[in-house]
Amino acid sequence: MEEKEISQAVIGRLPRYFRYLGELKDQGVERISSQDLSGLMKVTASQIRQDFNNFGGFGQQGYGYNVEYLYNEIGKILGLDRQHNFIIVGAGNLGRALGNYLNFERRGFIFRGIFDCDPKLMGMKVRDVSVMPMEEMEHFIREHNIDIAVLTIPKTGAIDVAEKLVQNGIRAIWNFAHVDLNVPEGIQVENVHLSDSLMKLSYNIRKGQKPEEIEDGGT
Amino acid sequence: MEEKEISQAVIGRLPRYFRYLGELKDQGVERISSQDLSGLMKVTASQIRQDFNNFGGFGQQGYGYNVEYLYNEIGKILGLDRQHNFIIVGAGNLGRALGNYLNFERRGFIFRGIFDCDPKLMGMKVRDVSVMPMEEMEHFIREHNIDIAVLTIPKTGAIDVAEKLVQNGIRAIWNFAHVDLNVPEGIQVENVHLSDSLMKLSYNIRKGQKPEEIEDGGT
Repeated sequence: MEEKEISQAVIGRLPRYFRYLGELKDQGVERISSQDLSGLMKVTASQIRQDFNNFGGFGQQGYGYNVEYLYNEIGKILGLDRQHNFIIVGAGNLGRALGNYLNFERRGFIFRGIFDCDPKLMGMKVRDVSVMPMEEMEHFIREHNIDIAVLTIPKTGAIDVAEKLVQNGIRAIWNFAHVDLNVPEGIQVENVHLSDSLMKLSYNIRKGQKPEEIEDGGT
Repeated sequence: MEEKEISQAVIGRLPRYFRYLGELKDQGVERISSQDLSGLMKVTASQIRQDFNNFGGFGQQGYGYNVEYLYNEIGKILGLDRQHNFIIVGAGNLGRALGNYLNFERRGFIFRGIFDCDPKLMGMKVRDVSVMPMEEMEHFIREHNIDIAVLTIPKTGAIDVAEKLVQNGIRAIWNFAHVDLNVPEGIQVENVHLSDSLMKLSYNIRKGQKPEEIEDGGT
């Protein structure tokens, strides 16, 4: 299927569609209209249709969408029909938390290794994977065909580590360090800013507290 | 300033504006045009203007935006000009990682307490806060005017815990458990799905690998 240039905004919405469709599929729902999906997900039916039109539409007039088909197609677009091997760099609390996330495995993201420079952490187990020293990282990446590196280290070391990762064949970085990595073109970086989500919550708290506010009609 | 009904999509973009403006402010930049902000943030100048028009516009023709003013105004809209006390429920790796995030404090989110049901974790320090048993949580919330509870526990207990939190005065939950909390109206919930961000990365990896793809013009 030929894909035109899709905006990151649309791509940003696909995982949520994928999650909802996964739940519908688990519940045995076979088909759903854009109207019903809209009510469930609290996005407009027109947004849903526009988003899916980027990929050929998927639905049929009068039928709506076939849940399993849509789920699989979005999964393929997101690259979830193939496996990705990842390592975690930085075995602090956040790194270990991510190593323990079983949900990633369900999506085809397989946790292969975890690295740190703190000698006290060496050999610590995160699930069935032991923390290894940074010196072993480059060789490990090449040996085990690692696609993705998750960066859960302080800002100070992040840029140098990112360079090493790229030199050794890493093509994608999931970055939790609060710094721009400046990687060469072609290397994919996804920056995670946990505080963004907390700031959204803060907005909603503030809005919820003002009695003279216009009544909130929904999400 | 009167605010009309703002979509969650616009609200979702405000934290990123806030972050970029914060950095410009730290660098001593006094004013910026929507064009330059657009180049920096890789969103269209027209999106920036439309987003800010929800809040009265902010800019001046020919001048652009005053960085510090805009930063402060967006901060107020996001409710960051006041302090929020939060507790963490679930002292596993993720809970402890969040307790250690100093960035939250910078935004006025103050870490006050952390709770767990595992006796082995009692008294463990997360920064200068000790892990407390679940039995003390309800009293603590009332005693310390806690606004926000961060839920970093498995799905199975999440709904019951959320109920307890709400009964004791929590008005906002930052939810990392992969389950819908079904809270009463007026209670704010922000659900975090870390795998969404990983799925975006997976899409970009896939797109980066196809030679026949249309060349990606930007973010």
